[in-house]
Amino acid sequence: MEFKSDKLDNGLVIIGEINKSAKSAAVGFFVKTGSRDETEQINGVSHFLEHMLFKGTDKLSALEVNEAFDRTGAQFNAFTSEENTVYYAAVLPEYLAEVTQLWAHLMRPALRDEDFDIEKNVIKEEIAMYKDLPSFDVIDQCRTLHFDGHPCGNSVLGSVESIGNLTAEQMRAYFVKRYAPNNIVLACAGNFDWAQIRSLATDSCSAWQQQNVERKLTHSQGSRKKQRHEKANLVREHICLMSAGVSAQDPRRFAASLLGTIVGDDVGSRFFWELVDKALAESASMQFGAMDGTGAFCSYIRCSSDNITKVLDIVRNIFDDLTGSGVTEDELTKAKNKVLSALVIKNELPMGRLVDLGFNWTYLQRYQTIEDDVNAIKTVTVDDVHSLIEQFRPGEFTQLSLGPARSS
Amino acid sequence: MEFKSDKLDNGLVIIGEINKSAKSAAVGFFVKTGSRDETEQINGVSHFLEHMLFKGTDKLSALEVNEAFDRTGAQFNAFTSEENTVYYAAVLPEYLAEVTQLWAHLMRPALRDEDFDIEKNVIKEEIAMYKDLPSFDVIDQCRTLHFDGHPCGNSVLGSVESIGNLTAEQMRAYFVKRYAPNNIVLACAGNFDWAQIRSLATDSCSAWQQQNVERKLTHSQGSRKKQRHEKANLVREHICLMSAGVSAQDPRRFAASLLGTIVGDDVGSRFFWELVDKALAESASMQFGAMDGTGAFCSYIRCSSDNITKVLDIVRNIFDDLTGSGVTEDELTKAKNKVLSALVIKNELPMGRLVDLGFNWTYLQRYQTIEDDVNAIKTVTVDDVHSLIEQFRPGEFTQLSLGPARSS
Repeated sequence: MEFKSDKLDNGLVIIGEINKSAKSAAVGFFVKTGSRDETEQINGVSHFLEHMLFKGTDKLSALEVNEAFDRTGAQFNAFTSEENTVYYAAVLPEYLAEVTQLWAHLMRPALRDEDFDIEKNVIKEEIAMYKDLPSFDVIDQCRTLHFDGHPCGNSVLGSVESIGNLTAEQMRAYFVKRYAPNNIVLACAGNFDWAQIRSLATDSCSAWQQQNVERKLTHSQGSRKKQRHEKANLVREHICLMSAGVSAQDPRRFAASLLGTIVGDDVGSRFFWELVDKALAESASMQFGAMDGTGAFCSYIRCSSDNITKVLDIVRNIFDDLTGSGVTEDELTKAKNKVLSALVIKNELPMGRLVDLGFNWTYLQRYQTIEDDVNAIKTVTVDDVHSLIEQFRPGEFTQLSLGPARSS
Repeated sequence: MEFKSDKLDNGLVIIGEINKSAKSAAVGFFVKTGSRDETEQINGVSHFLEHMLFKGTDKLSALEVNEAFDRTGAQFNAFTSEENTVYYAAVLPEYLAEVTQLWAHLMRPALRDEDFDIEKNVIKEEIAMYKDLPSFDVIDQCRTLHFDGHPCGNSVLGSVESIGNLTAEQMRAYFVKRYAPNNIVLACAGNFDWAQIRSLATDSCSAWQQQNVERKLTHSQGSRKKQRHEKANLVREHICLMSAGVSAQDPRRFAASLLGTIVGDDVGSRFFWELVDKALAESASMQFGAMDGTGAFCSYIRCSSDNITKVLDIVRNIFDDLTGSGVTEDELTKAKNKVLSALVIKNELPMGRLVDLGFNWTYLQRYQTIEDDVNAIKTVTVDDVHSLIEQFRPGEFTQLSLGPARSS
C-alpha cells in the first residue's frame, strides 16, 4: 500500500492509494458540491447536472460516451448527496487509464439545451417516483424540518416546481462555479500506475479554470419540531427522527457512529430488541451521518398506526435510559465488531476503498489509512459515548411522521 | 492463494482457498437442495426451512443465535434457489472460527413446532409480498410454464396453499434427507487458518448421519408455450421470455453467459440500443442461468401496453438476426470486458470468492482458480457463440406476459 498525492496549478488534487496485489482498480472524481450549495431557485441542479454529464461533451455524443464505457467493461455510476457529487468506475487494471481519461473529458460537459430539455422530464419522473416511496419521502421531509433553513435541509432532488423553472443557463452558471478544479479531488485506488494517471490528469485537466469556491459551514442544533402529515394510500405509519451530531471533521465521529449502531443497527440493537423483535415495528433503525461542519442522527421507524403511541413511548424510554445510564461495555464491544468488520470488508475492494479515500480527503484534506480508522474505532470508550449523549441529547429530536388519515 | 480440501467419513466436503493478504474471511455451508428437490405437496419447504435454521438448536434459542452472530460482527445471511440453499458470513479473520462453529451448530436445527407455526405466517406474508411485485411474479410464472413439469419449474417460495398445508413433520423428514452431510459443502475463502477450520468441522459435523441423496438430472428444452395473464392494478406490460441453454457442467456456459450479455446487458446490449435507448421499453435485459444438468436464457421486458407489438417485433428481429448472422467480434470483445471485470471484481472480496468457490465444487466437484475462469472466457470465439445459437435457438422461447386488462 503506497499513497501518492499531487496538486495541479489550478488546484485540482490528485490522490492515489496503490495496492499492487489488487486485481482491479477504481477511479473517482469527487466534486464538493450538492444540494446544500444551491439556492431555493435552483434547488435540484446538482443532481440534474450529474445526469447531464452522461450526455457528453462538445466532441462526444451520449451514444459515444455509452460505447466508450462499454469498451472498458467498467462498472460505473455517479451519485449526488447534500454535499457531494461523485463519479466513479471500477475496472480491470489495464482499463483504468482509459476510463479515467473518459471521466476527465466528461467533467467538461457540453450541457446542450436540447439534452437539458429532454432530461428535465426524466428528473421530474424521478422526483415523482421517490415521492411515492414513503420511507424515502419521510426522511427527506424530516431533514428539511430538522435543519429548518440551514442549507443541509435542502432536498437533493429538488421539487417539480424548482426543476420546472430551472434554465440551462442557470445550470451552466452553477457548473462553472462549482465544478472548478480547486473544488474537485481525483482519486484512484487499487492496482494502477500512479505516474500514468498523474500525467493523464495533467494533460486533460490543467486547462480547467480555477474559481473562488465557497461553502458556508455552520453547525445546526436542529429545530426539534414535530409534525405529522396524512397521505392518501398509506397503510402504515412512517416515522423519522433527527437530532444533532458531530461533524465529519470531528474525531468523535467514530463514537457517534458506534452509538448509532448500538441504538439502531438492523439486528441486535436496542431498537431491534425493543421494537422489531417484539413485532411492534416492522423496521426500526438509527444511523449517524457526519457532514461538513455539522452532523445528524437519523432514525426511521415503520409500524402499524395502532402501535404509534406504544412505539414512541418505547423510543422515549430507550433515549431516557441512554441519557441516564449510557451504554454498556458489552454493547460497545459488539458495535465495534460490527463497525470494524463492515469497514474492513468495504475497504478491501478498490471500489469501496476509493469512497473512503476520496471522502477523507474532501473532508479532512489528508490521507487516513484503514489502520488509522480501525484504531480510532478500537479506542472509543463507553465514557466517550456517554459524553456525546450528554452533549447532543439524541432524545431531543425533530420528528416527522407520514401516515394514513386518522379515524376520529 | 492456496487451495485445500478434505472429506469427513460421513461425506461432508470441506474446502478452502486461503489468501493470506486478504483483510477478511468468509464461510458458507452450501446445501445442494432447493425447490427442484421438492414434490408439489411440500413445495416451498426448502425456503421455509432456511428461515427455520435461524430459530436455533436444542441448545440455542433464537435470541442466543442472534446475540452470537452479533458478537462476531458478522455480515451474514442465507438464500434459497431452485437448487441450492446457502448460509454464509463474512467477518474479520479473528472471528471466522467462531462464526463457522455457530453455523455448524445451526445446521442441526431444533425445528420446534411452535417456531414452525409462527414462521409459517412470515412465509405466507413473503409470498404475498412477492406476488405483488410483477417483475418477480412474471419470471416465476414463466419459469413454471417453460419447464412445464420439469422440477426446475417449481417455485422457490411455494404457494399460500402448499405452505398452509405443510406440517412440521414433513419439514423434518425433508431436512433429514436433504441436509445429509454428503449433500453439503463447507467452504471458506480469504484469510483463515485451514487446520483450525478443518478440526472444528471434524469435531462439530462428524456425528451427522450420511443418507442416500439423489437428484434427477434431465435436460429441458422448454415448452415454448405463450400465455398472457391480466392483473388488476397493473399499468405496465411485464414480459418474460425463456429458452433452453447449457448446464452448469457444460464448458459452453461461458459462451452462453457472453451471449446473454451481448443481447441483454443493462447498458450497451442489443436490447438496450433497440428497446431502452429508443424509449420503447423501460427495462429490457437477458441473462443466462446455468443449472444442474440444464440451463436457460431468461429475458425480462417492461413497457407500455401500447408498445407491446412493436417491442415483440423488435425482439423477433434481434433473435432472427442472431440466428442469421451471429454476433460480431466487436460485440464479443465488449461483452468479454464486462464479464471479466464483473468476475474479477466479485472474486476479489473473500465473500464474493466464496460463492464461486462453493458453487464450482457443488456443480463440478473440483477447484477452479479465478484464472481458469478468466482464461475460459477469454478463449470464447464468435463461432462458439454462433454454434450455441444454432443449437439452442434463443428465438424459440416460452413467453409469459402480465399486463392490464385490454380495452377491446
